Amino acid sequence: MIVAMQEGATAAQIEHVVERLVEDGFKVHRTTGTTQTIVAGVGRPDAFDVKEYEVLDGVSEAYRISSPYKLAGRSFAPDGTVIRYANGVTVGGEEIVVMAGPCAVESRDQLFTVAAQVKAAGGQFLRGGAFKPRSSPYSFQGMGLDGLKLMREAGDATGLLIISEVMEISQIEMMLPYVDTFQVGARNMQNFNLLRELGHIRKPVLLKRGPAASVEELLLSSEYILSGGNYDVMLCERGIRTFETYTRNTMDISAIPVVKKLSHLPMIADPSHGCGRRDLVPAMARASVAAGADGLIIEVHPNPEKAVSDGAQTLYPEQLEKLMTEMRAIAPALGRRLR
Amino acid sequence: MIVAMQEGATAAQIEHVVERLVEDGFKVHRTTGTTQTIVAGVGRPDAFDVKEYEVLDGVSEAYRISSPYKLAGRSFAPDGTVIRYANGVTVGGEEIVVMAGPCAVESRDQLFTVAAQVKAAGGQFLRGGAFKPRSSPYSFQGMGLDGLKLMREAGDATGLLIISEVMEISQIEMMLPYVDTFQVGARNMQNFNLLRELGHIRKPVLLKRGPAASVEELLLSSEYILSGGNYDVMLCERGIRTFETYTRNTMDISAIPVVKKLSHLPMIADPSHGCGRRDLVPAMARASVAAGADGLIIEVHPNPEKAVSDGAQTLYPEQLEKLMTEMRAIAPALGRRLR
Amino acid sequence: MIVAMQEGATAAQIEHVVERLVEDGFKVHRTTGTTQTIVAGVGRPDAFDVKEYEVLDGVSEAYRISSPYKLAGRSFAPDGTVIRYANGVTVGGEEIVVMAGPCAVESRDQLFTVAAQVKAAGGQFLRGGAFKPRSSPYSFQGMGLDGLKLMREAGDATGLLIISEVMEISQIEMMLPYVDTFQVGARNMQNFNLLRELGHIRKPVLLKRGPAASVEELLLSSEYILSGGNYDVMLCERGIRTFETYTRNTMDISAIPVVKKLSHLPMIADPSHGCGRRDLVPAMARASVAAGADGLIIEVHPNPEKAVSDGAQTLYPEQLEKLMTEMRAIAPALGRRLR
Amino acid sequence: MIVAMQEGATAAQIEHVVERLVEDGFKVHRTTGTTQTIVAGVGRPDAFDVKEYEVLDGVSEAYRISSPYKLAGRSFAPDGTVIRYANGVTVGGEEIVVMAGPCAVESRDQLFTVAAQVKAAGGQFLRGGAFKPRSSPYSFQGMGLDGLKLMREAGDATGLLIISEVMEISQIEMMLPYVDTFQVGARNMQNFNLLRELGHIRKPVLLKRGPAASVEELLLSSEYILSGGNYDVMLCERGIRTFETYTRNTMDISAIPVVKKLSHLPMIADPSHGCGRRDLVPAMARASVAAGADGLIIEVHPNPEKAVSDGAQTLYPEQLEKLMTEMRAIAPALGRRLR
Repeated sequence: MIVAMQEGATAAQIEHVVERLVEDGFKVHRTTGTTQTIVAGVGRPDAFDVKEYEVLDGVSEAYRISSPYKLAGRSFAPDGTVIRYANGVTVGGEEIVVMAGPCAVESRDQLFTVAAQVKAAGGQFLRGGAFKPRSSPYSFQGMGLDGLKLMREAGDATGLLIISEVMEISQIEMMLPYVDTFQVGARNMQNFNLLRELGHIRKPVLLKRGPAASVEELLLSSEYILSGGNYDVMLCERGIRTFETYTRNTMDISAIPVVKKLSHLPMIADPSHGCGRRDLVPAMARASVAAGADGLIIEVHPNPEKAVSDGAQTLYPEQLEKLMTEMRAIAPALGRRLR
Repeated sequence: MIVAMQEGATAAQIEHVVERLVEDGFKVHRTTGTTQTIVAGVGRPDAFDVKEYEVLDGVSEAYRISSPYKLAGRSFAPDGTVIRYANGVTVGGEEIVVMAGPCAVESRDQLFTVAAQVKAAGGQFLRGGAFKPRSSPYSFQGMGLDGLKLMREAGDATGLLIISEVMEISQIEMMLPYVDTFQVGARNMQNFNLLRELGHIRKPVLLKRGPAASVEELLLSSEYILSGGNYDVMLCERGIRTFETYTRNTMDISAIPVVKKLSHLPMIADPSHGCGRRDLVPAMARASVAAGADGLIIEVHPNPEKAVSDGAQTLYPEQLEKLMTEMRAIAPALGRRLR
Repeated sequence: MIVAMQEGATAAQIEHVVERLVEDGFKVHRTTGTTQTIVAGVGRPDAFDVKEYEVLDGVSEAYRISSPYKLAGRSFAPDGTVIRYANGVTVGGEEIVVMAGPCAVESRDQLFTVAAQVKAAGGQFLRGGAFKPRSSPYSFQGMGLDGLKLMREAGDATGLLIISEVMEISQIEMMLPYVDTFQVGARNMQNFNLLRELGHIRKPVLLKRGPAASVEELLLSSEYILSGGNYDVMLCERGIRTFETYTRNTMDISAIPVVKKLSHLPMIADPSHGCGRRDLVPAMARASVAAGADGLIIEVHPNPEKAVSDGAQTLYPEQLEKLMTEMRAIAPALGRRLR
Repeated sequence: MIVAMQEGATAAQIEHVVERLVEDGFKVHRTTGTTQTIVAGVGRPDAFDVKEYEVLDGVSEAYRISSPYKLAGRSFAPDGTVIRYANGVTVGGEEIVVMAGPCAVESRDQLFTVAAQVKAAGGQFLRGGAFKPRSSPYSFQGMGLDGLKLMREAGDATGLLIISEVMEISQIEMMLPYVDTFQVGARNMQNFNLLRELGHIRKPVLLKRGPAASVEELLLSSEYILSGGNYDVMLCERGIRTFETYTRNTMDISAIPVVKKLSHLPMIADPSHGCGRRDLVPAMARASVAAGADGLIIEVHPNPEKAVSDGAQTLYPEQLEKLMTEMRAIAPALGRRLR
């Protein structure tokens, strides 16, 4: 914690800052320049708000100098976390994993068809939504528990792992028997109660970055899960909100190497939500692999035009196959491989 | 719904678009120019995704031309909604209301002190958080039910109405006896299950705009509550996320007249979260009144430097008093008044 | 300048940072905590790039702790700059000034009509573009020198001061006899050569914030003019680019109090470009006054629907008159007045 | 041009819209639904402002349905533009080109050293700034003409093509004998006078996207150059401004496939400015290739820590070499190649 005083700050103002720092649990070092005094608080109190120092009289600027997350930081596991599933699949290792499937589970037919296509293309996970958060109350809201059961069946039939979105605490227990990985959607990235509960289960969690969240905030959210004792967390870039309107979101590809640098957690890319347009998904998926992603989560549907939701960003099965071939050709440039 | 075909789109591509529109429940009109064909879908199907048309072959652009919300639209209640409380306070009428109080309820002493100050300054609502969503798991998380009970007591003692944030469905029933208005925080603006439940209660709801949400999305979220039969909804601008870092958020003052134009719902301004700095709150509160806000929600604390959360953006009681005087002087320029 | 080393940074890495700081002209203080070393550079070297420290090995974060601008900072003129014109008009004093007129000068008739309307409404400046930067090469590009001459004539006839946009260095000399104030448009906020030249003239300059520029960058740009010896600079908020599309830009009203706090320069608000819609201009103009603006620049045209450019954001003359009355009622709440 | 009227718009309001469309040169088709009337203007008038329709009484929304650019559109040259240089280098063909060099030309020694390194690594262009736009007036401002001469010498000595930034019209003639390609920086993307002049020369132009510019605006700016008769234009993504602060800008990788879809112009990626940090440049360069970029422009310096500007985002020569190897391995996955 560093507090830079304004030029001309009074001795009393400086003293007040020092007292606040001591109260917050810091040891204080003072550096007096010809024009400006700088006060450094060292030690690592758990909770303090840097903004509260900024508005004190005589303060010019204040900076937190230790990162607010601990368990998510690279130094906690310098070699990187590898999540291991019972069937041998790993996330965060040499292999780049592919999670694919429809936005929403619609029917047994649809799901089994797409599961077979995902398996054939070389995917390891079947994704699919049973509970759907829709921005209009007049849209389809998901199949619920029936959808989950279909997912499990399709997973068992094909050998694919199941990943599906959990929207609230009350769904966790219901979902536990059916999913291999819980997905937390972008809108819930700061639903801290939900994250805390997911820290107490023993299944991996994929946590998506919110559309207005910085990478630091994403890491801080993951801390809620990690601090509960669940270390099998993967993060996911799915686009942030910017002024550009041609794409639904602007996919921040740089978040991939940034997360890999700052944290030990595996980083997944979601090009479907990242750009929101089927015609751009392959380019963004390839870019994600080239930037170092540990995996991809992609929407695919036997007939995207008939999909009940997100059809515009959903690939045709033959597009997925072609894309897999391209990604397989790129991965070795980074010492990685796709199945 | 308008679909503009690319120049050179084939007859088959145009036919395909027409079929999709018919399937989605539209009546179709076609306009053929020398270089470009435009297909218009009229009628108002409830749910369709304009993005799905954009990615069809031969399509240049697609636009939704009817607003996706209905009950929230101005035309539903052209004279504007006025929310009426049992004690005679109204929101959305001539009077501009003030909701003030601490970020978090900390103790009986703190709360009763601030309640008296809010009452003396001329406020109508006591705000205060019993459940706190904090971005770090290592921060204070709120007093819970005990905090709610203190709120109710303080409200009854002073005649102030009580507003407090509900974070999840399971809290609604617990809160019902204690609060006069439910606040939905920015992070929950698209927690659709929560919104739907709030549509079934019979107490007013204040819905905050998310930091990455457009005004249209805010209105669409309010539709979830309205469509459940709860028409006592007020909206709230509390800052959006932009590249500017001097302020915590960028308070979008223009959202105030925009909401008043597009919708009949009352519009509240939250300058505390809007800028995140105590020294800017008065200027932004005055600007909100001048732009046409129906009310303000402001953080105040007997001793902001000791506040357990959001101290940096919390006013001293004497600042609130001065601000009230300034706002009282501005309101008549718009034909409004503050108590 | 503060450099926070990573936990576990080596002695050699710390030494390297210290050497860089010394090379850049800093005196160095070192603070060693149990887990982390912090290196502070004091003194005020003119030019260094904080980003270059961030990427050095072993560095966690680096912060500039003195503001990069000097002449624009509040401490340079704590009482605030007041710009004084020969006819007695002042900008930055008690009076709030109004600059109004058409986006583009179109004809003698148009200009003289609007000048009389601006004068009658109580404005002090006639604004109007002679050179127009248009985003399409197929749009009207301005009347040039003839437009400037008309501006001067209209100014002399009505007693209004003239403000017009300069787009490049070569236009400065041509404009000097005709304008009382040079306007630098948002697109030129970082045209440093142009700014430098404007530092050498002796007429006031109004510098607009770029749509992607932070307040700090705006102040830094003003430094180019000030450091040339021209101290009569006013700044202007005219909207920044965000994800919200209902308005052309998002007008950052908080930039008004922020500039007044950080700098001594007068701050003008441009609600016309700020929101881009005629129906929102009055609300945003009122909000600007309430937030502490020293003046407003507003587009008005005898017949906005026939305006050759920016008609959508241009007021009808009767709207300007009504708005002036509203603003006159608000100003006293801040101890200010409008003519 | 489509104008959707509000429900309940009057006959007179509809008539007024129709008249405006006719005045603007459109042919008008009217579609009357049960609740809403839609007015379509067909034909392609050169200049009109869709915003002016939005604010007319009774109008709900208005959309431009033909793209505002013509010569830059894909349909103008469906097979894509290939720029051909005298030495056989092509941009926009099968080969992916690499432009590398220092941010600023500093000395003969520096430039010749880096030119040899770029050549050895397999680059085709030497980049380097002779005129530098710096955000602080206290920073180094470039070597000017002497820098250009050194560039030409270094280019002739190594067989590299020369690309350098032009900042204003007056520099064009001075630069013509020395450069092979003019670069227009992000800050000048909407300096329309400069663009117009560059339309009259016969050397290729690389036009960078502004940090707050949409892809559509980038294409519209290129139209200024194209409409002057200079068809050798390449575009460049170099990062946009968002709320994320870890990176200097957020590099919008999706702009690469979007430009390739909407336009026939070659698309270059600038990962150095795109992320602003040396440690992220390789990942973003690889991602650009994977997303379909036609070339890269990368900052490299014999000793980045001693670079007079942009050192933080400048690669070490050995990093460039390693990156070239990685990109060479990725290109074939897209049917492309690097030298």
